[in-house]
Amino acid sequence: RFGISYEENAGTPGTATLNGSSDTIIVHRFRMNIDGSAETDSGVRFSARVRLQADEQTSDTAPTSRGEAGAAGLNGARFSVEYEGLRVDVGNVAGAIDNMPGYYGEEIGLEYFVGQYSAANYSFLGYSSGGAGSNGVYVRYAMGDFAVAASYDQASSASGTSTTALVGDRWDIHAAYTFGNITAALGYGETDTTVKQDILVLTLGGSWGAFSGNLIVGDESVNAAGVADATTSDTFYGISGTYDVSSATSIGFTYGDGSGTGDRQQYGIGVNHDLGGGVSLRGGIGNSKTGAGTSTTRADFGARFNF
Amino acid sequence: RFGISYEENAGTPGTATLNGSSDTIIVHRFRMNIDGSAETDSGVRFSARVRLQADEQTSDTAPTSRGEAGAAGLNGARFSVEYEGLRVDVGNVAGAIDNMPGYYGEEIGLEYFVGQYSAANYSFLGYSSGGAGSNGVYVRYAMGDFAVAASYDQASSASGTSTTALVGDRWDIHAAYTFGNITAALGYGETDTTVKQDILVLTLGGSWGAFSGNLIVGDESVNAAGVADATTSDTFYGISGTYDVSSATSIGFTYGDGSGTGDRQQYGIGVNHDLGGGVSLRGGIGNSKTGAGTSTTRADFGARFNF
Amino acid sequence: RFGISYEENAGTPGTATLNGSSDTIIVHRFRMNIDGSAETDSGVRFSARVRLQADEQTSDTAPTSRGEAGAAGLNGARFSVEYEGLRVDVGNVAGAIDNMPGYYGEEIGLEYFVGQYSAANYSFLGYSSGGAGSNGVYVRYAMGDFAVAASYDQASSASGTSTTALVGDRWDIHAAYTFGNITAALGYGETDTTVKQDILVLTLGGSWGAFSGNLIVGDESVNAAGVADATTSDTFYGISGTYDVSSATSIGFTYGDGSGTGDRQQYGIGVNHDLGGGVSLRGGIGNSKTGAGTSTTRADFGARFNF
Repeated sequence: RFGISYEENAGTPGTATLNGSSDTIIVHRFRMNIDGSAETDSGVRFSARVRLQADEQTSDTAPTSRGEAGAAGLNGARFSVEYEGLRVDVGNVAGAIDNMPGYYGEEIGLEYFVGQYSAANYSFLGYSSGGAGSNGVYVRYAMGDFAVAASYDQASSASGTSTTALVGDRWDIHAAYTFGNITAALGYGETDTTVKQDILVLTLGGSWGAFSGNLIVGDESVNAAGVADATTSDTFYGISGTYDVSSATSIGFTYGDGSGTGDRQQYGIGVNHDLGGGVSLRGGIGNSKTGAGTSTTRADFGARFNF
Repeated sequence: RFGISYEENAGTPGTATLNGSSDTIIVHRFRMNIDGSAETDSGVRFSARVRLQADEQTSDTAPTSRGEAGAAGLNGARFSVEYEGLRVDVGNVAGAIDNMPGYYGEEIGLEYFVGQYSAANYSFLGYSSGGAGSNGVYVRYAMGDFAVAASYDQASSASGTSTTALVGDRWDIHAAYTFGNITAALGYGETDTTVKQDILVLTLGGSWGAFSGNLIVGDESVNAAGVADATTSDTFYGISGTYDVSSATSIGFTYGDGSGTGDRQQYGIGVNHDLGGGVSLRGGIGNSKTGAGTSTTRADFGARFNF
Repeated sequence: RFGISYEENAGTPGTATLNGSSDTIIVHRFRMNIDGSAETDSGVRFSARVRLQADEQTSDTAPTSRGEAGAAGLNGARFSVEYEGLRVDVGNVAGAIDNMPGYYGEEIGLEYFVGQYSAANYSFLGYSSGGAGSNGVYVRYAMGDFAVAASYDQASSASGTSTTALVGDRWDIHAAYTFGNITAALGYGETDTTVKQDILVLTLGGSWGAFSGNLIVGDESVNAAGVADATTSDTFYGISGTYDVSSATSIGFTYGDGSGTGDRQQYGIGVNHDLGGGVSLRGGIGNSKTGAGTSTTRADFGARFNF
């Protein structure tokens, strides 16, 4: 994918050794999965994946500045074993909340820069596209309309959104049930650090003709530097959806907020136009505000293609 | 490609922690393009490329010395959109002078170690094979025998031949016209740093039976550490060509020099023998001298193959 | 491959910025060879290889600890020319001892953590899977049951098992002869550092029905920090073998030791069960002791698959 992105007040003035950067920059991402698989005589499928990804630079690092190209990199490997409804992942895995249906909902713009989960601060086990990731285990079992999943790793600050060192076991679980055109999912995660952190989250998603929508609501208690953080430990909630205005064009929206004084509020709308052959034009405009901080507007537009 | 290379006085004596290196070393390069593409229903072609490259080490870095192997690396991604005669590149692109017909001419040896452009010091927007490269835009439009191209990026010292920080907008343009067996091209580039830098360059190339030749002449004004550098801001010129002595073997030569007292003069001759199946043996010998400095002889020989 | 590994006393207690690691960790390796080849009209084959590999982290590096995932990396490139019985490798090559038949014998477990060569301390020219490797040359000529090989590089501490700086030319040679179901090989290597280092090694391997076995015996003189090291310069010896208990399952064992007071003794047994389709389950348990030091037990179990 590639395009242009505008972020309010993100530009920096130039210096002798560093270009200034504009609020508006060229963005791009190249992503390729390197996959391998083998199947035993009894039908158990083994597979492995490493991802190669190149992005534009997102921050100023002399002598190159925000918006310059970044060299491609490789991430940590993920290994999977699948047999009928059972799947076990080992290595750089996505955990049970990262894989939970309806958690992310509809994300806006070419870069997915706003989402309904904006006020969720808990650092769950997530897949790392650009780095090594965690070395965890994820197990999922699906039977008809019902699925359960659990994941475990030894949490470290290498993954997730927290910059605090997280020392301890980390468990995520979810259960999902589909009835007709509606899917409901309930997830729970906890990290056994000195001050325990946890999250409980419920999602509800469905589609009715040209419209599909998604609700998220949850409660969490998280740490900042090992101390319980009341400003972000709280209830969070969000809603998102898409509407197909024609066979090729759809409009999406998202809104997320939380009850904590340190929570991030985000909302935005976007458009997606399919050109066929795996190519689409995408763009969006949105707003982000953390607690009582300044509200920042961001917009982007560009092309995305699969190969 | 791989082979051996001799460079006068390039070797270094060994120390307790570092092997000395010989003037003559083993050289090699492994290069693979990782490409992906998609085409819309209306025939617009989107493509992306990341390059994987491994070279021998070119300088002493304890504990390994010049001539040891280097680990392979990935570069920055390039994205292209093509429709009929129009092509737009975004990301780690080659600019309008890097893509100008006849700029490089015939380069000598397995490693292309001498070229007709030796006295050109202007740092234009170039494709980076080993690093992130610039995040620029390149547009080319071709109609019959005529083509025009332009490129833009925010110049930084991450690319090009200058080690000076270059802070400012950088524009390159070229126009090329082919009449019969002759192609003429005119290029202009400028970088809007505090002291403006620019280049104007004309090339003329053609082929007559077994012989093909190329002329380059240009004028430039460049900076060193932000101050106009009179020793390299000047006229530069060069000539190169090849002659096919048989259906499989060709001989090439090149010569480049400039009017500045700090300009680099290079000349050399090389030979290329095709073994079929994409394999060729290549070698060359050449000489390089910067301003009134010492003249250095360099030679190499080896095999090159495409896969 | 992936699985779990136990190593006695390898775990570390956690700190504020680093997770402790358990004695038992999740291990994995993703390895893919990126190969290219071309053949001339006269039948000379040129090829090149770069390896992409991802492992779990093997040591504590804040903020991530031993057992976390590691990002994938690329190694140095190897180039080969083959024509009838002759093969020449250039770049990141395996030398004549690394390629000697019967040197490694049967290695134990998913991770090959014990081997019959445990008391050999000489640092020969080896292929590097994770780094740049040496830039060497390896030549092998095979004629019927007989083969000879030689390799040369300028040794540096970047490769091999020695942490001492090795400054000097390094030569390895071997000759191998197969008579009936038995292969014998003799190898010699030397490194011309200030205090010369060398190794002489003899292997004998054969197979009789369901059983195959391997013997190694050798003598070496090595340096530690440029001074001859009497505790490891000595005789070393080992034995290993496998027995097929059924068409899919085999049991292996290995034992290695040396006469020096600083030599490492290792022994272990392992099992390998083939599931078909390139997938196998592998595990082992073994013991390692350096000189009069503490004996350490290690065990692992997991799945390995080729794609």
